[in-house]
Amino acid sequence: MASSRQKVVIVGAGFGGLSAAAALAKTDAEVTIIDRRNHHLFQPLLYQVATAGLAPTQIASPIRMILRRLPNIHIELDEVTGVDLAARRVRLGERTLPYDQLIVAAGATHAYFGRDDWAEHAPGLKSLEDALALRRRVLLALESAELDMDRDARERLLTFVVVGGGPTGVELAGAIAELTRRALACDFRRIRGQRARILLIDGGSRVLSTFCPSLSAYAKRALETLGVELMLGQPVAHCDTHGVKVGEARIEAGNVIWAAGVQASPAGRWLGAETDRAGRVFVEKDLTLPGHPEVFLIGDCASIRDATGAPVPGVAPAAKQAGAYAAKVIAARLAGARAPGPFRYANAGSLATIGRQAAVADLGRVKLTGFPAWIFWCAAHVWFLIGFRNRLQVVLDWVWSYLTFERGARLVFEAVTRGRDPAIRVASPAAEARIAS
Amino acid sequence: MASSRQKVVIVGAGFGGLSAAAALAKTDAEVTIIDRRNHHLFQPLLYQVATAGLAPTQIASPIRMILRRLPNIHIELDEVTGVDLAARRVRLGERTLPYDQLIVAAGATHAYFGRDDWAEHAPGLKSLEDALALRRRVLLALESAELDMDRDARERLLTFVVVGGGPTGVELAGAIAELTRRALACDFRRIRGQRARILLIDGGSRVLSTFCPSLSAYAKRALETLGVELMLGQPVAHCDTHGVKVGEARIEAGNVIWAAGVQASPAGRWLGAETDRAGRVFVEKDLTLPGHPEVFLIGDCASIRDATGAPVPGVAPAAKQAGAYAAKVIAARLAGARAPGPFRYANAGSLATIGRQAAVADLGRVKLTGFPAWIFWCAAHVWFLIGFRNRLQVVLDWVWSYLTFERGARLVFEAVTRGRDPAIRVASPAAEARIAS
Repeated sequence: MASSRQKVVIVGAGFGGLSAAAALAKTDAEVTIIDRRNHHLFQPLLYQVATAGLAPTQIASPIRMILRRLPNIHIELDEVTGVDLAARRVRLGERTLPYDQLIVAAGATHAYFGRDDWAEHAPGLKSLEDALALRRRVLLALESAELDMDRDARERLLTFVVVGGGPTGVELAGAIAELTRRALACDFRRIRGQRARILLIDGGSRVLSTFCPSLSAYAKRALETLGVELMLGQPVAHCDTHGVKVGEARIEAGNVIWAAGVQASPAGRWLGAETDRAGRVFVEKDLTLPGHPEVFLIGDCASIRDATGAPVPGVAPAAKQAGAYAAKVIAARLAGARAPGPFRYANAGSLATIGRQAAVADLGRVKLTGFPAWIFWCAAHVWFLIGFRNRLQVVLDWVWSYLTFERGARLVFEAVTRGRDPAIRVASPAAEARIAS
Repeated sequence: MASSRQKVVIVGAGFGGLSAAAALAKTDAEVTIIDRRNHHLFQPLLYQVATAGLAPTQIASPIRMILRRLPNIHIELDEVTGVDLAARRVRLGERTLPYDQLIVAAGATHAYFGRDDWAEHAPGLKSLEDALALRRRVLLALESAELDMDRDARERLLTFVVVGGGPTGVELAGAIAELTRRALACDFRRIRGQRARILLIDGGSRVLSTFCPSLSAYAKRALETLGVELMLGQPVAHCDTHGVKVGEARIEAGNVIWAAGVQASPAGRWLGAETDRAGRVFVEKDLTLPGHPEVFLIGDCASIRDATGAPVPGVAPAAKQAGAYAAKVIAARLAGARAPGPFRYANAGSLATIGRQAAVADLGRVKLTGFPAWIFWCAAHVWFLIGFRNRLQVVLDWVWSYLTFERGARLVFEAVTRGRDPAIRVASPAAEARIAS
């Protein structure tokens, strides 16, 4: 009996995968959703975890908790290692899982434009682990600067480079500026009164290049008000433990953070499919793999053009819409109904925040900046957070931070250690790297 | 000018160190407090982080934030590697820090009664890292059991052994029973309806042996109501990756948790001082090191008898009182006043919680159990939490959990991985150990 039910497998419990699962809960398909992590992550607020504004629990929910009330959905914490298209089976190590319909929503990771060796010097921000590692690095840089007697070393430790002027880079640079300014003014003794140097580097001519030029100009001014230095028009030429090179200029920096590019998951490799330069799989108008109408690709691992021919951006609302669309196609097939028309992306607008009371909102004809955009940004992000308790906690934390300028999540879980070598100083780059690793 | 001020160095920012620092803020001494971690940890609630009830941020506060308003207190994130008693200097790797008065409040870690090789199989609970590692292990055991088709392996994964029947062991066993019962009933498919097996093992004849026998008997009944099996009167004879041996009985268990003993920090070694078997340094009636009236030892690294000759227990209130006392002695010296009398410990009572609406409170003549004790326990722990926001968040979380039976912090930060070896199954002990490590 049960085995005659259609088997749908979803790979990835991000925005796309969860949205598909929720829509398929209304069908009688037997759905299995697989993820390498036990939680769904609200990535748009990840930069706030990295800059100690929010705690991990507040932006991540256990997948089992989210999908608890949907009895036809099974959840497996496991890693997909391949797909056997001919046998219609997903490979998980030695184990395989059969499917009738497959939705691949495996997301993306950072891309270093072929310079993968930069990854260790310039970590990116995609997972909670990334965010916690970044938080640790930023906080330990301040602590090391407080201990260090050497002026050059202190300056290096207090220099933060953010590579990439998209929303993530802008949000990170703004948040680091706010975090360090407050910390240096109130919480330290020797480095009190010093200023951290925050640089935002982008190869393009303006930040937030996907927004309209007036909003980019506003973001630039808002960043400069926060003390962020913008270096535009030149990409990063080199990256190592001690800093970066931009054109001919060498910048000594204790922290370099990568927000410059994403690379799709290995979905293309699993499927032996054609991908664009960022590794995203080209799909048909109904989001299926060419030649395989039973395989859907959605979210950041797919290169999608909507019915109008416009490329669909790699943002959460697009992934959600694609997930719901794929579920609709599958539901129509199960019901023997006519397939829906091609995927259409409804662009609800773009948002980015720079800092306290400073944000931009591009809502088609309506453009907002400053306080109205910031309130809109806060409301929209809280609205889309999953779980009532998370919403309540985030609102409380934001109100608290707004009133007190305080960041409560300034924890470094690990203890520092002097190791065996008495000659290693905490503030030396090698020791710092060791501590931060 | 400034150099003529007395230099006080405090090692450790636990309950004892912070209490001393706060009291010394009223003097004109130049105080430096050193800790290996950037946060003060509210250890009494650590077991709730380990069992996904609370998030790390809720029970830990950055030391700099706590002491921000005390201008004569410097904070250093660093590791003490020794003390030069003759030169009156604390060693931190190659660096040294001079002191006129030294307060050592370096705390304790787990002790395995000489079987340090058990540490990897039976992790303990002293730091946030420990708690997060334990949370990961417990949650991954459930996930692995859900994937595993083999009945024996599933039973092993769903067996949790807690070693040690003191407050920490009782609290952990109760919380794991509540966590797993709820998760298995609501969040899983294949293992739904199964029951986790939780064993609490202690060599003594009753749990909570420092409480009066009637409260121990209540705790035993409350644990049994939660489904915890008690094995009393026999210590653990052996411990490995697959479980434990108690007397002749072998228990296969996916998780063994150590709550059986503490060992003082290396303070005794730093000072070349005489210690008891648990490594705690013997001190004079004024908490100073024999022969060194300028060196105080407080909290879990000191073996203290109060003025009445009774041993002072290793609990937070005792550490706080000792910290305040040491500061008072130092303040009297700075003021040229007469030294206060010997240290007296004011015992405010003992508390332990077993689970929802179940706790014991030994308040001298008054003994509470059940709901009244539980409310008292909640109120006391919230009261002593540092930081208004933490208190508010913990109260909200507890009220939420009470109403919904929900545990919001069920996160495993790391992704699982299949590694290179396709023959490794997630649920195998080796793979599980690898994932959990």
